[in-house]
Amino acid sequence: MIIVLKKGAQDKDIDNLIDKVKSLGLKPMVSRGQERTIIGVIGPEDVIRLQPLEAYPGVEKVMPVLAPYKLVSREFKEGDSIVKVKEGVEFGSKKIAIVAGPCAVETKDQLKEIAFKIKNSGASLIRGGAFKPRTSPYTFQGLGEEGLKILKDISQEVDMPTVTEVMDTRDVELVASYADVLQIGARNMQNFNLLKEVGQTKKPIILKRGLSATVKELLMSAEYILSEGNFNVILCERGIRTFSEFTRNTLDVSAIPAAKMLSHLPVIADPSHACGKWGLVGPLSKSAVAAGADGLLVEVHSNPKDALSDGPQQLLPENFTSLIQELRKVAQAVGRSL
Amino acid sequence: MIIVLKKGAQDKDIDNLIDKVKSLGLKPMVSRGQERTIIGVIGPEDVIRLQPLEAYPGVEKVMPVLAPYKLVSREFKEGDSIVKVKEGVEFGSKKIAIVAGPCAVETKDQLKEIAFKIKNSGASLIRGGAFKPRTSPYTFQGLGEEGLKILKDISQEVDMPTVTEVMDTRDVELVASYADVLQIGARNMQNFNLLKEVGQTKKPIILKRGLSATVKELLMSAEYILSEGNFNVILCERGIRTFSEFTRNTLDVSAIPAAKMLSHLPVIADPSHACGKWGLVGPLSKSAVAAGADGLLVEVHSNPKDALSDGPQQLLPENFTSLIQELRKVAQAVGRSL
Amino acid sequence: MIIVLKKGAQDKDIDNLIDKVKSLGLKPMVSRGQERTIIGVIGPEDVIRLQPLEAYPGVEKVMPVLAPYKLVSREFKEGDSIVKVKEGVEFGSKKIAIVAGPCAVETKDQLKEIAFKIKNSGASLIRGGAFKPRTSPYTFQGLGEEGLKILKDISQEVDMPTVTEVMDTRDVELVASYADVLQIGARNMQNFNLLKEVGQTKKPIILKRGLSATVKELLMSAEYILSEGNFNVILCERGIRTFSEFTRNTLDVSAIPAAKMLSHLPVIADPSHACGKWGLVGPLSKSAVAAGADGLLVEVHSNPKDALSDGPQQLLPENFTSLIQELRKVAQAVGRSL
Amino acid sequence: MIIVLKKGAQDKDIDNLIDKVKSLGLKPMVSRGQERTIIGVIGPEDVIRLQPLEAYPGVEKVMPVLAPYKLVSREFKEGDSIVKVKEGVEFGSKKIAIVAGPCAVETKDQLKEIAFKIKNSGASLIRGGAFKPRTSPYTFQGLGEEGLKILKDISQEVDMPTVTEVMDTRDVELVASYADVLQIGARNMQNFNLLKEVGQTKKPIILKRGLSATVKELLMSAEYILSEGNFNVILCERGIRTFSEFTRNTLDVSAIPAAKMLSHLPVIADPSHACGKWGLVGPLSKSAVAAGADGLLVEVHSNPKDALSDGPQQLLPENFTSLIQELRKVAQAVGRSL
Repeated sequence: MIIVLKKGAQDKDIDNLIDKVKSLGLKPMVSRGQERTIIGVIGPEDVIRLQPLEAYPGVEKVMPVLAPYKLVSREFKEGDSIVKVKEGVEFGSKKIAIVAGPCAVETKDQLKEIAFKIKNSGASLIRGGAFKPRTSPYTFQGLGEEGLKILKDISQEVDMPTVTEVMDTRDVELVASYADVLQIGARNMQNFNLLKEVGQTKKPIILKRGLSATVKELLMSAEYILSEGNFNVILCERGIRTFSEFTRNTLDVSAIPAAKMLSHLPVIADPSHACGKWGLVGPLSKSAVAAGADGLLVEVHSNPKDALSDGPQQLLPENFTSLIQELRKVAQAVGRSL
Repeated sequence: MIIVLKKGAQDKDIDNLIDKVKSLGLKPMVSRGQERTIIGVIGPEDVIRLQPLEAYPGVEKVMPVLAPYKLVSREFKEGDSIVKVKEGVEFGSKKIAIVAGPCAVETKDQLKEIAFKIKNSGASLIRGGAFKPRTSPYTFQGLGEEGLKILKDISQEVDMPTVTEVMDTRDVELVASYADVLQIGARNMQNFNLLKEVGQTKKPIILKRGLSATVKELLMSAEYILSEGNFNVILCERGIRTFSEFTRNTLDVSAIPAAKMLSHLPVIADPSHACGKWGLVGPLSKSAVAAGADGLLVEVHSNPKDALSDGPQQLLPENFTSLIQELRKVAQAVGRSL
Repeated sequence: MIIVLKKGAQDKDIDNLIDKVKSLGLKPMVSRGQERTIIGVIGPEDVIRLQPLEAYPGVEKVMPVLAPYKLVSREFKEGDSIVKVKEGVEFGSKKIAIVAGPCAVETKDQLKEIAFKIKNSGASLIRGGAFKPRTSPYTFQGLGEEGLKILKDISQEVDMPTVTEVMDTRDVELVASYADVLQIGARNMQNFNLLKEVGQTKKPIILKRGLSATVKELLMSAEYILSEGNFNVILCERGIRTFSEFTRNTLDVSAIPAAKMLSHLPVIADPSHACGKWGLVGPLSKSAVAAGADGLLVEVHSNPKDALSDGPQQLLPENFTSLIQELRKVAQAVGRSL
Repeated sequence: MIIVLKKGAQDKDIDNLIDKVKSLGLKPMVSRGQERTIIGVIGPEDVIRLQPLEAYPGVEKVMPVLAPYKLVSREFKEGDSIVKVKEGVEFGSKKIAIVAGPCAVETKDQLKEIAFKIKNSGASLIRGGAFKPRTSPYTFQGLGEEGLKILKDISQEVDMPTVTEVMDTRDVELVASYADVLQIGARNMQNFNLLKEVGQTKKPIILKRGLSATVKELLMSAEYILSEGNFNVILCERGIRTFSEFTRNTLDVSAIPAAKMLSHLPVIADPSHACGKWGLVGPLSKSAVAAGADGLLVEVHSNPKDALSDGPQQLLPENFTSLIQELRKVAQAVGRSL
């Protein structure tokens, strides 16, 4: 931690700060420059991070030196983590994992048809929402537990593990009893109680980046889950909110290598929500894989025109099949398989 | 709803859309221009809003004409709503309501000292967090129910109603049993289950705008609460996330008149969280009142240097007192009192 | 300047950096912490700012301590600067300066009518564009020199100094020969050659903040003008680009006190361009004055429906008159006059 | 163009609008819905786009149907444009064009060394700044004409065409006399006079997207160049400004397929400026090629530690060589060559 003092800070202010730092069991190193005095603080940064030093007289700014996250960091664990869902289905290994399926579970027939098609095309997991976060209270909110049951049934028929979102602390146990991987949506990335709750399951968790979250905040949210004992976290870049209006959100493709540089956790991308337009899902998927993504979440629907949610961004199964063929080549070009 | 077709859309695509519109019980009006065909849809827009028309072949874009919210809109209710907390304490009337207090409830003594001071200076409600949403799992998370008790005790001693945040659907009943006004934080603005839950209480709700939420999305979240039967909603502008880095967030002062133009609900501002620097709380408070805010949320702490959270942005009681005196003049200048 | 080394940086990397710092005539202060080594650099920061230290092996990040601007800073000059246009018309003194007029100079009659009305209402300067930056090459581009002549003629008839934009280095001399105050538009805030060129005139310059410029970048652009010898710079907040879509841009009202905290230069606001809607110009104008603005730029047109540019955001003269009356009260409430 | 009227708009307001539309030679189509009246305007949209219809009483909003650009659009020209620099060097064909070189031309020796290395590795054009836009007036501003001469000399020695930036309308002729391709920097994307000036040369122009420009605004700026008769425009995505702070800017990779969907012009990417960190240049380059970019601008310097500008983001020649080898595989995976 570095404390920069104001030009003209008083000696008594400086002494005050030095005393404060010492009282925390830390060692201050004072550099008196021509224009500014700077106090470097040696010792565990956490202790001092919790102190509102900016509120002290004479202080211009406080600059942390160390990252605030621990368990998720490359410094805690150097090698890449692999999150295993079941035999042969994992995130973070050489093989890129494809999660596909409709935005929402609508009926058993709908899901079954899609499930067989995406499995044949090369998907490893099936997704489908049972609890849907919707901007309007007047739109389809998901089938709830009924949707979870359908998802599980189909999962067994087609032999693919499932991914589904949990939105409420009260539902974690229920959702965990049906699904193989729990998803925390972008709107809940900083729903800290929900993070703690899923941290107490041992299920793999796909944690989506919030629309206005920095990569560091995403890592801090993952830290909540790991700090409860669940290290099976998969980070997901799904587009951020910017002024750019052609796509629904802006896929921040640099977040993929950035997160992998800072953290050992696997990182996947969700091109469907990032762009909101099925015609762009292809280029964005390839782009994410080329940038190093360990997996993709792709929305696929047999009949997007009649979808109960997010119709415009869902791929037809035949388009998904072609996409996978193209993605396979890109994956190989960057030393991965699919 | 207006459907704009692609240049060169086929007649069969147009006919398809016309059939679809009619099948929903709506009336299509087709305008065939030189460059584009446009279909205007007459009738209740909600029915068609739920249809993914952009997924139809030949469609370039779909432009909604009506706003997606109802109960919160000026069209639903023309006059300003007043949310009453108790006799003499309300949001939306001529008198501007000041909510003040520390970021977090720390101890009974701390809160009592602040409470008497802010009441003397002119605050109408006392705030203090018992459940704190914190970016890091390793920082102070609030006192929980113990904090709620302290808040209630002090509230009775000093005779001021209380505002406190609720973060978890499971805590709504508990928090509502202690506090007079419930606050939904920015990070939970789209925690839809939480919105529904507080919608089932009759308590006044302060709903904070999310860091990357548009004014319309804020209104849609309020609509969730109203649609459960609770019309006592107070909207709160608290700064949005932008590239601008001098302040913690960017106070979007135009959101205040914008929200009041679109909705009948009262609108307040939180200058403390918007800027994150106590030196800017004064100018921003005046700015918000001048723009038409119905109230303010201001963080005040007797000893910001030792605060357990958000030290740098909390005002000292003496600074709060001067601020109120200055604000009173601004309020009068715009025809309000304080 | 503080250089933070990577965990595990090699001794030879550290020695390399120390040598580099010494070779620049500066003094390195090395703090070896448990987790990180930090090198503080004592001496004029500019010398080292120009060195790409982040490109050295072992360096994690480089954190500047001092601001990169000098002449514009409060450290260079403590008191507020007053930019005088002519006797009784100045920016930065107790009286708030109002610049009003149409977006573009259209005809002599148009301008004359507006000029007399705004002067009567209380404006101190008249604005009007002769060279217009327009997004489309197919829209009205301004009258050019003809517009400048009209502006000057009317200025003399009505006895008000003029403000007009200059967009091209080649036009600076011409525009300066007609106008009293030159305006640099938001799109040209980082047109550095243009800044240097107007820096060589002695004219007052209104420098508008770019749509995606930080306050510090605005100050750096002002520094370009001051460094050429022209200290008559007025900073202008005119809205930044964010995701928020209800207004054309987002007025960053906190930039007003922020710029005044960092710099001695006067700061004004342009509510018309910030919101793009005449109905919001009133609240935003009051808000800016309450936050400490030294002046306002307001677009006024006698017949916005027929305006050749920016019709929707221009006030009618009668609305401008009422606005000034309301603003006068707000100005008094914050210890200013108008 | 669609005009949406306010709820409760008066008949005389509607009649007024209808008259206005007719007076412009256009045909109004009125749809009176239950909640709103809508007027569709049939005919060339440009005529009405210039009218400030939002300033008319009773109008809620005006929604354009057609895009404001023409010559750059896919509707004007269906097939992809190829911009040819010289025999075998072109943008927009199957072969991806690589532009490489240092941020700034520093000395003849520096440039020569880099030039031979990048040519051997597979670059097709050499870049280097002679006029540099720098945030601070106190940093290296480029060698000016001396830099252009060096660039030309080396270009002939190594037989590679050159790309360099022009910042000032007064320099266009000079720069065009030395360089093969002119670059318009992000800060000048809306320097409309500069766009017109380069539009009058016949040189290929690389037009960089502004930090806060939408894809449509980028296309409108290109339209300025084409409308002067120069169709040799190459669009360049170089990162936008967002809240995300890990990278210098945020590469908006979806802008690449978006621009190619809307326009026939070639689109390239500049990963170096987008991220500002050499360690991320590799993943972002691959990502851009996978998304369909027709070329890349990559900064390469033999000794980034001593670079006079942008050291941290420049690749070493040996890293550039490996990158090209990896990129070749990605290019092939998406059906291109390199």
